[in-house]
Amino acid sequence: MIRFNNDYHRAAHPAVLKALADTAGESYGGYGIDPWCEKAAQAIRAAADRPDAAVHFFVGGTQVNFTAIAAALRPYQSAVCAETGHIHAHETGAVEHTGHKILTLPSPDGKITAAQVAQVGESYRRSPIPEHITQPKLVYISFPTEYGTVYSLGELEALRAVCREYGMTLFVDGARLGYGLAASDVTLPDLARLADMFTVGGTKCGALFGEALVITDPALQPDFRSYIKQNGAMLAKGWLLGLQFAALFEGGLYFDICRRAVEMVMRLRAAFAARGIPAYLDSPTNQQFVLLTGPQMDALREKYTFELDHPLEDGRMCVRFCVSWATTDQELEALLADIERL
Amino acid sequence: MIRFNNDYHRAAHPAVLKALADTAGESYGGYGIDPWCEKAAQAIRAAADRPDAAVHFFVGGTQVNFTAIAAALRPYQSAVCAETGHIHAHETGAVEHTGHKILTLPSPDGKITAAQVAQVGESYRRSPIPEHITQPKLVYISFPTEYGTVYSLGELEALRAVCREYGMTLFVDGARLGYGLAASDVTLPDLARLADMFTVGGTKCGALFGEALVITDPALQPDFRSYIKQNGAMLAKGWLLGLQFAALFEGGLYFDICRRAVEMVMRLRAAFAARGIPAYLDSPTNQQFVLLTGPQMDALREKYTFELDHPLEDGRMCVRFCVSWATTDQELEALLADIERL
Amino acid sequence: MIRFNNDYHRAAHPAVLKALADTAGESYGGYGIDPWCEKAAQAIRAAADRPDAAVHFFVGGTQVNFTAIAAALRPYQSAVCAETGHIHAHETGAVEHTGHKILTLPSPDGKITAAQVAQVGESYRRSPIPEHITQPKLVYISFPTEYGTVYSLGELEALRAVCREYGMTLFVDGARLGYGLAASDVTLPDLARLADMFTVGGTKCGALFGEALVITDPALQPDFRSYIKQNGAMLAKGWLLGLQFAALFEGGLYFDICRRAVEMVMRLRAAFAARGIPAYLDSPTNQQFVLLTGPQMDALREKYTFELDHPLEDGRMCVRFCVSWATTDQELEALLADIERL
Amino acid sequence: MIRFNNDYHRAAHPAVLKALADTAGESYGGYGIDPWCEKAAQAIRAAADRPDAAVHFFVGGTQVNFTAIAAALRPYQSAVCAETGHIHAHETGAVEHTGHKILTLPSPDGKITAAQVAQVGESYRRSPIPEHITQPKLVYISFPTEYGTVYSLGELEALRAVCREYGMTLFVDGARLGYGLAASDVTLPDLARLADMFTVGGTKCGALFGEALVITDPALQPDFRSYIKQNGAMLAKGWLLGLQFAALFEGGLYFDICRRAVEMVMRLRAAFAARGIPAYLDSPTNQQFVLLTGPQMDALREKYTFELDHPLEDGRMCVRFCVSWATTDQELEALLADIERL
Repeated sequence: MIRFNNDYHRAAHPAVLKALADTAGESYGGYGIDPWCEKAAQAIRAAADRPDAAVHFFVGGTQVNFTAIAAALRPYQSAVCAETGHIHAHETGAVEHTGHKILTLPSPDGKITAAQVAQVGESYRRSPIPEHITQPKLVYISFPTEYGTVYSLGELEALRAVCREYGMTLFVDGARLGYGLAASDVTLPDLARLADMFTVGGTKCGALFGEALVITDPALQPDFRSYIKQNGAMLAKGWLLGLQFAALFEGGLYFDICRRAVEMVMRLRAAFAARGIPAYLDSPTNQQFVLLTGPQMDALREKYTFELDHPLEDGRMCVRFCVSWATTDQELEALLADIERL
Repeated sequence: MIRFNNDYHRAAHPAVLKALADTAGESYGGYGIDPWCEKAAQAIRAAADRPDAAVHFFVGGTQVNFTAIAAALRPYQSAVCAETGHIHAHETGAVEHTGHKILTLPSPDGKITAAQVAQVGESYRRSPIPEHITQPKLVYISFPTEYGTVYSLGELEALRAVCREYGMTLFVDGARLGYGLAASDVTLPDLARLADMFTVGGTKCGALFGEALVITDPALQPDFRSYIKQNGAMLAKGWLLGLQFAALFEGGLYFDICRRAVEMVMRLRAAFAARGIPAYLDSPTNQQFVLLTGPQMDALREKYTFELDHPLEDGRMCVRFCVSWATTDQELEALLADIERL
Repeated sequence: MIRFNNDYHRAAHPAVLKALADTAGESYGGYGIDPWCEKAAQAIRAAADRPDAAVHFFVGGTQVNFTAIAAALRPYQSAVCAETGHIHAHETGAVEHTGHKILTLPSPDGKITAAQVAQVGESYRRSPIPEHITQPKLVYISFPTEYGTVYSLGELEALRAVCREYGMTLFVDGARLGYGLAASDVTLPDLARLADMFTVGGTKCGALFGEALVITDPALQPDFRSYIKQNGAMLAKGWLLGLQFAALFEGGLYFDICRRAVEMVMRLRAAFAARGIPAYLDSPTNQQFVLLTGPQMDALREKYTFELDHPLEDGRMCVRFCVSWATTDQELEALLADIERL
Repeated sequence: MIRFNNDYHRAAHPAVLKALADTAGESYGGYGIDPWCEKAAQAIRAAADRPDAAVHFFVGGTQVNFTAIAAALRPYQSAVCAETGHIHAHETGAVEHTGHKILTLPSPDGKITAAQVAQVGESYRRSPIPEHITQPKLVYISFPTEYGTVYSLGELEALRAVCREYGMTLFVDGARLGYGLAASDVTLPDLARLADMFTVGGTKCGALFGEALVITDPALQPDFRSYIKQNGAMLAKGWLLGLQFAALFEGGLYFDICRRAVEMVMRLRAAFAARGIPAYLDSPTNQQFVLLTGPQMDALREKYTFELDHPLEDGRMCVRFCVSWATTDQELEALLADIERL
């Protein structure tokens, strides 16, 4: 079987594996206080043009999401996100488990708008008895979204403005950040200028595992390592995270491998379209959602894995194909040929 | 100003105040271990025809809701309720504060259906990766609902059945239970047969304050007093709660005063209808939601308080009028006359 | 049986009951937004000489303790208290239930010293890896303590100074505050000058129920009502709390009835001493701990209740006798006579 | 500098690195549902002689500790451990952060006794008002302890018996399990027979990272993956954990490399003794605590790292030296020679 079902089914980019192998005999300080974490943090600060940012490394996405969100909120404050947001839909109530309500906004494409956020902020501000509801204090967006869509620079700036207006923190989940940057007019410095906190995803973008959390808001930086440790997210051999990100940010590798995957996925998108298979929505990034008939699914299932997203009332299925940094040309060619033959 | 804005703006029924006065010189054991709490619990068990039920007394509704719900759930389990449910909409995220997600269901009238609950249960049961979402384990309904509507006996039985099918606890918030029982084909023994836990509201039904929690599910009874104490809900002078409920259940007073209020509110409903003022929805209980124009609101505001629920797009306002055990005939007559003059 | 086992076995002072009776027919706004709460808050601010303080009313002590402490702490921060502190020893882990560790200090008499607190603060400050331990951020003391002892003004000032030095909040649990003020050189304005937050206990000092929380630290005041509501501590008929405290602070009643109880208890202390019954420790307030032999316990048990604190190795029992605002002269005289006869 | 300060300063055993390299091009299912995790789980079940045990893989120790403990407790229940226990002393209040109190027991050597646990259980059982305190429900011990000591088989059996008597779960933190098994009369099947849950530490015993949690109590097994995901502990590329444990349990490698380290550390222990440097306590495992004078510390600091544990009143320092699977003969020889020269 050739896997297109997700973008985390292979270990790591050769440069990452080489970094691990090259340092296997070395000895380092623990808990992320080591030269590799420092080097990686510097590389990310430089690439983001935010020398003042704090950078911390986490093993996984759910972990970094709930830790960062809880650190930004007081008990009576809530997070706002799309109904499709990963923290709401796929993380087993981890944010609520830390004590915080999530207020969801309807979203056909995984994105939310500044106007929607403003409405939430206004509603709280105008409430005659705000103490009976939670205070919306943090906006969570994913970039790209769970449906592969991206925010434009203008959309992000509008979200930034509305967050400022209502005193909300803007948190961007960049689990697939590399693919999003390759497919939008947003640059890493743009993101670092507009978001109070954001993650640079490694697990789906070339690393064995790892998410870098970048905190630009100085108010959220103090004592952050205490949150990491308390939430079980402080890796004893922290340098394993640092050296992976150092390898990925060396010479822009992170951006290159994601850009290549986005270029490849455009061929996949075109192949579906050429074959008359409709997209569920228009995704410019490495996740493509298309509507397959039963026979089409059966045919493709013989050689490929893909993820079932949701059934349609007409019997078709919305399915997801992912291309990643690890997808080979042969794998893609095979799929393209088989789509043509459907 | 004559208050119709809520049903908790007066102290307590004279029988309750008399019970307090009569016992003012007495001395009792603390923390709810006293003859009054025992007597009240027995009275409630008898009225509910559940001699096996555990009965605990709380001061307030938010408190009893989150304590009981958290006691019934494991950390990865969630509560299901209408989007209008009090625990979701008006309790400052108290349930999430205890670590649990709330899954909301759309509801035009405050009620949810067995079919909706079945869909939630089925969705979890069929999930290929249930560990990525919370397990729906408790259904919260309010009786009557936040919009004054009530479930029929058949509807409750259907909810009971679906909860059993999917292993969910059925919890009924009876903050206004007396008014609901007076306006439906559901009896207290019916409720006690169908619900795993339910509250008998005192604060809005004749008591100074107090909610009785009735736990019929034996699995939820052990060590429950530990939850009460841990959540700050164990009243030092617990007999103050017991004697109020004992007074209210003496000779069926609780049911009588609520039935009278429901009879009175029917006159209010008729008066609005006679004047051509539309109801927002059809409520058979002590809360009436009607649609007022600006001039109508201004006219009524001169003498009466009522609660603004939500504005309509056409400029009218949906407002709530509450009648209660404490509403006097004179107060109602005055309002009826002024509605006629609108 | 005549109860000396605690100080909350009778309803309320006549002035409080009269206030309730006088207002029974009145109608008020909900949730503590009413003239009585405002009047009571003003009376407490005036008596404490802190016009800038925020005052909130709670029903019970555990509730106000965990709500206030959690509001003052971030998730990685902990509270410091004596090993005998009520929040550690008698509240079912309520503070930990809100997510916070309690660091305990040894204490033979219920008190802790500035030097002990400084050691905790210094230990954190000097830790090479503070992120592996919680940050001590709040000092909890009870005044009087669980053993009836009181802090002198000098001791409180030293605690204040050390808290300032280490950036800690000083929180004083005044569940029996009236008795403590009657037995020390500390005045209410002193307390309000030195503590960041403190409670004025009503339940044990003349009220039916109720604790007033006074917040002098402006940083802890914003949005505090949201914490109250989220923790189920916002009484729907909030005026019931306000009018009780208004009655108690009218003409200094609160201080008078507590002073009288302290005067009475001194006679009890003297009677035990005269009879050769040793005190467990020297308490100047309304709780007296004495060491009884088995026969002495048996003799007193026939007419009186008292609380068993802990057994001694020599077979004697340390027991607690409480006098309160509600103890009558006849009750005390009877006990004094029976002690003499032991 | 040669590091003896901890046992997690080098990457991984060559066999682990080889397993990673060998599979680098492969593609696997996510979230721990893969052949490697299954193979590793089977190997651990076989080595532990518990075919009925559930085995889950975590990245880190704090994470597995608080997740497993919280899964075993209801909100009002607490964990019992030595005052030196890792969950109490070094994990930033992670257990309290999940809502649970820790009851600590005095311990000069890191161990607790069955008699101590019985006293805690008895105290709760006999409490007249148990709802005012937490219910001790889980006993946490570390094997070996934070001071390197180990429990004998008899001691473990006594703890097992007392836990059964009082209905407590016995949880064993085996972060350094391999070293403990090499230095005691306890076998892995013994541990798996006596503990309800225990961990098999990888991070300090040859893995890059990873802790295996073995759950033998069937009551604690259901839905455990939901806890893992909710706590951010489900590794997307879960096979990375499985293949490491599979490599370590292949041919008993895990046991061999830990046994070798224990043999090496005995030479270190002997060298300190020969030089007249006293041990702080008698540790048979890979952590040695000795008392150094200032000049001795200065001399050793020039070439070696070691951890400062605590200062003594006489000016000496208790320090920790760790030997691990990664310590080379040359490193040890150098240190031995330098100790001799002190």
